[in-house]
Amino acid sequence: MLMQTHEARLAALREELKRRGLDGFIIPISDEHMSEYVGDYAQRLGWLTGFGGSAGFAAVTLTHAAIFVDGRYTVQVREQVDGKLFEHRGVPADTLSGWLGDVCESGAKIAYDPWLHTARWVSALEGQLAPRGIALVAADSNPVDAVWADQPAPSAAAATPFDEALAGQSSADKRAAIADWLEQHGHDAVVIPALDSIAWLLNIRGADVAHTPVALSYVVARKDGSADLFIAPEKVTPELARHLGNAVTIRDRAAFAGALGELAGKSVSLDPDFAVAGIAQALTAAGARVSFAADPTILAKAIKNTAEQQGHRDAQARDGAAVSRFLRWLEIEAPKGGVDELAAAAKLAAFRAEDAGLKDLSFDTISAAAGHAALPHYKVDEDSNIPIPPSSIYLVDSGGQYVGATGSGTTDITRTVWVGPGQPSAEMRDRNTRVLKGHIQLARAVFPQGTAGGQLDVLARQYLWEAGVDYAHGTGHGVGSFLAVHEGPQRIAKPSGGQAGTGQELFAGMILSNEPGYYKQGHYGIRIENLVLVEERQIEGQEGRYLGFETLTFVPLDRKLIEKSLLTAEEIAWVDAYHAQVRALLRPRLSGDDLAWVERETAPL
Amino acid sequence: MLMQTHEARLAALREELKRRGLDGFIIPISDEHMSEYVGDYAQRLGWLTGFGGSAGFAAVTLTHAAIFVDGRYTVQVREQVDGKLFEHRGVPADTLSGWLGDVCESGAKIAYDPWLHTARWVSALEGQLAPRGIALVAADSNPVDAVWADQPAPSAAAATPFDEALAGQSSADKRAAIADWLEQHGHDAVVIPALDSIAWLLNIRGADVAHTPVALSYVVARKDGSADLFIAPEKVTPELARHLGNAVTIRDRAAFAGALGELAGKSVSLDPDFAVAGIAQALTAAGARVSFAADPTILAKAIKNTAEQQGHRDAQARDGAAVSRFLRWLEIEAPKGGVDELAAAAKLAAFRAEDAGLKDLSFDTISAAAGHAALPHYKVDEDSNIPIPPSSIYLVDSGGQYVGATGSGTTDITRTVWVGPGQPSAEMRDRNTRVLKGHIQLARAVFPQGTAGGQLDVLARQYLWEAGVDYAHGTGHGVGSFLAVHEGPQRIAKPSGGQAGTGQELFAGMILSNEPGYYKQGHYGIRIENLVLVEERQIEGQEGRYLGFETLTFVPLDRKLIEKSLLTAEEIAWVDAYHAQVRALLRPRLSGDDLAWVERETAPL
Repeated sequence: MLMQTHEARLAALREELKRRGLDGFIIPISDEHMSEYVGDYAQRLGWLTGFGGSAGFAAVTLTHAAIFVDGRYTVQVREQVDGKLFEHRGVPADTLSGWLGDVCESGAKIAYDPWLHTARWVSALEGQLAPRGIALVAADSNPVDAVWADQPAPSAAAATPFDEALAGQSSADKRAAIADWLEQHGHDAVVIPALDSIAWLLNIRGADVAHTPVALSYVVARKDGSADLFIAPEKVTPELARHLGNAVTIRDRAAFAGALGELAGKSVSLDPDFAVAGIAQALTAAGARVSFAADPTILAKAIKNTAEQQGHRDAQARDGAAVSRFLRWLEIEAPKGGVDELAAAAKLAAFRAEDAGLKDLSFDTISAAAGHAALPHYKVDEDSNIPIPPSSIYLVDSGGQYVGATGSGTTDITRTVWVGPGQPSAEMRDRNTRVLKGHIQLARAVFPQGTAGGQLDVLARQYLWEAGVDYAHGTGHGVGSFLAVHEGPQRIAKPSGGQAGTGQELFAGMILSNEPGYYKQGHYGIRIENLVLVEERQIEGQEGRYLGFETLTFVPLDRKLIEKSLLTAEEIAWVDAYHAQVRALLRPRLSGDDLAWVERETAPL
Repeated sequence: MLMQTHEARLAALREELKRRGLDGFIIPISDEHMSEYVGDYAQRLGWLTGFGGSAGFAAVTLTHAAIFVDGRYTVQVREQVDGKLFEHRGVPADTLSGWLGDVCESGAKIAYDPWLHTARWVSALEGQLAPRGIALVAADSNPVDAVWADQPAPSAAAATPFDEALAGQSSADKRAAIADWLEQHGHDAVVIPALDSIAWLLNIRGADVAHTPVALSYVVARKDGSADLFIAPEKVTPELARHLGNAVTIRDRAAFAGALGELAGKSVSLDPDFAVAGIAQALTAAGARVSFAADPTILAKAIKNTAEQQGHRDAQARDGAAVSRFLRWLEIEAPKGGVDELAAAAKLAAFRAEDAGLKDLSFDTISAAAGHAALPHYKVDEDSNIPIPPSSIYLVDSGGQYVGATGSGTTDITRTVWVGPGQPSAEMRDRNTRVLKGHIQLARAVFPQGTAGGQLDVLARQYLWEAGVDYAHGTGHGVGSFLAVHEGPQRIAKPSGGQAGTGQELFAGMILSNEPGYYKQGHYGIRIENLVLVEERQIEGQEGRYLGFETLTFVPLDRKLIEKSLLTAEEIAWVDAYHAQVRALLRPRLSGDDLAWVERETAPL
């Protein structure tokens, strides 16, 4: 069969728009759940334009088309998307409303798929287009789907019960807490479209999205503690039905939009960040009273209970052994010059996969050699893959999804290592050591209850700032429990950066990454990432409640990149104590040369 | 003449309300300019209730009355305000709308003075009272003024030109910048009611408000660079008229409200934090288009030019000599037990007044002995005054307004000293040293352009947090140039504390206080405060623009309260270098025993 060209796809979409009497359509990378990662069936932007990045959108009118990407994808969009078909536009400098205003006549009707955008996005764009005389209209069905002949079906993987011993709390108890919340806020129900919220609330897992063990579904939870789970029938096993019990009604996902009409006259809570406009519109049309508030499962999910905390510790020990074995392998093989980025990532995945509890990687491994390491979000593929040059810096940011009898958890770790032969430059050692000092100061932080992540961010940056450099990403994100590797609501980052979550108070039980870095464009990049668990502290003479961090991740730090003279005695003691913990934790899991390597790498500085 | 009782005053006010057909009235501590400190004529709350604090408000209905104060004044309100006349209420637990809802019938008409509240306050309260069936109505004139027979007249002090050499920029240039801003934002004019904004914009000063050299007035500035100054005619000298020149029209302050009608049909900008509701209402009634935006002089005023920076350095040198002489005097006299808080404050003022350039103190001196020092905002008066106990901690927070041929500036300094004989406890030395470490880390901070004050706050708190303690106030506020000692828009504080300004980017030229502290209730208090100037830094290999702080305040730190073993080598070097600067700066200004004292106190640790 002949591969359809992007030109033909664009022409087909325009025919479809004409048939519907529409003047244009907007194509995001998004699904009905506002997921961070979306399934193949929802990769409409890639199908239409050829763009392979993870963020961006296109707009197509009968005469013009443009693709909008941010600064990370400026180069990639040029390589992947034909500029004769789609103008290349850069956000935030270029705006969708500005472009539509330029190419559309007054009176134009531009459509969007209400199941792929939030109500907030719709009303903001409506407000921007109205003065230009352009109407924004909801499409009845997605016009791309109408012309995408071989669109993949959504995943049919089974949803499975998640062991209550691992979850640490029954779904009935979780639903009872949501019911209390609904009662307190005067609502009858909450509609939950976020897939990890559903997985957490019902203690189920799935395999519908890469790297995140969730099942495509919706939940309506009510103030009597009951819930409806809308899920494709082929995903439902008898075991799942038994697990969900009588208080959870299993219904067909295809019936969800229509079933919203049952909430007529009810007060319904929706999360403005996760509920698509289609849900809000269907509820309002049915006569429900919609209130927007944060999904009530999000904060509860972020505060890990004892079983979840223990699961993370267990997963980290397994993961630490695999990553350590990989780093020893890399130390031997990479200096010979025969290892490329893809091969390194595959080798790391293989070490992880030796653990029967590994269910998936928690995200695409960032395996970045030399100048690629200077791109914090670098994703290696066949086109970008390069051999790791001898005598260079190599950065690997990766994680696993573990589940097993002894606990379950999600890991996320970055190590930056010097690939011999020879020694890193003084500048590389200086920068790595400043990143490490910031990492240590954040790890050692003690702070009163009531402190938000944004207040702690400077602790990780201060030594880089002293040298006149910084890193252009956040310092820490939340992490799920055998769920999403990026999880809200908490975040450690610059409050002024516009990143949600920096104002969220930290609570004991939350897990965050601690990942300062430094990036020298075109040359090298450094990042040191461990996960940390917020814990309550007891301090003699304390006034009020105080919190600190327990480090969860245990893998040796590369000694060749540490300039000891830049460390204080306290910082040296921290590294030595950390390495002693690494040694103690990994010793039972390693043997022979792997164990000898860890013992050598974790000797006192 | 018989002193009128508060009971009689309350009764008179109620008669006045009845005469006007009103069911109640709200009495704030406020003036027509939303000033931090208000003149005697505007002390209506004190006159009505007897309350002497600086924050609070009362509400009076025909049958009930209450005074609302925050936690700082819980004790004071009990001592000063008769609970049989005014119920004592605590904010934020008790709310005005809640109380009015409890004591008023539906249909009640509660009045407010639109010249003493912002439009935002009015609309918020209206929204809270409407569901209770209570109408909030603007009073035509203030009912308290109608019954306050001996209400002081507003100050008649002359307004005076401020030397352009000290201001560093002509008023014409400043007005031209405001005109550009109006043009950019599509406005015809801005109404400026903030007294320090007016003083800065027109390069004038006054003597109408304690501690802040401003003149009661309003300005309307237009996009052609011209302005109207509304000011009482008795304040205008020929010298002032000459200084203001042809582009500034001097008009009677009494004509201001009526003159707003001249802006009919114009686009007018108002600062929502400083423009009272009366201004917005008059403009809207006249048919002007009102937009709310920050007063455009505020950021420009906060970024000190070279002349203003030099003026601050000059003022600090003079102030440092006076405070040092005071501390030496205190070290000799206080251990004898004969010095009380008021006497100490008076002695400090006398040392300052020996400098002919001292025009005023910049705020009421906080002269706090022993347990009083644990109240961060303690204000000594005849009732609270106690002798400074020997063998205790004494805290003094004070400042001066200086002007003279060599420069002008506003100072604000806190020193905490051990009053002998004997030695402070280990805990006192520990806490003081942790405060000092935080002060040093903030003083040494280097940060990229784009950083907001709120991001740096943790640097000053981290060592206290490590010990499980904190301080319940901000770390730094802006300071004016021979203007208000508290000046926006910048602020170093917890972003979550609801304090405005923590998100404001810091710019080179801004001045802030650096004042961490520790307060042990009932026992002692510690605060170390210097002013710092934001300056650009040059760093080898820097990427982007970086900023740091130049310390402006130079007075010895009390060595007896420093536990040297808690300081790092870098921190000891900072203290020694700071003390060397103190010595060098004060040596030409001191002699004899005073100089010997400074040399002894500033020797290396």
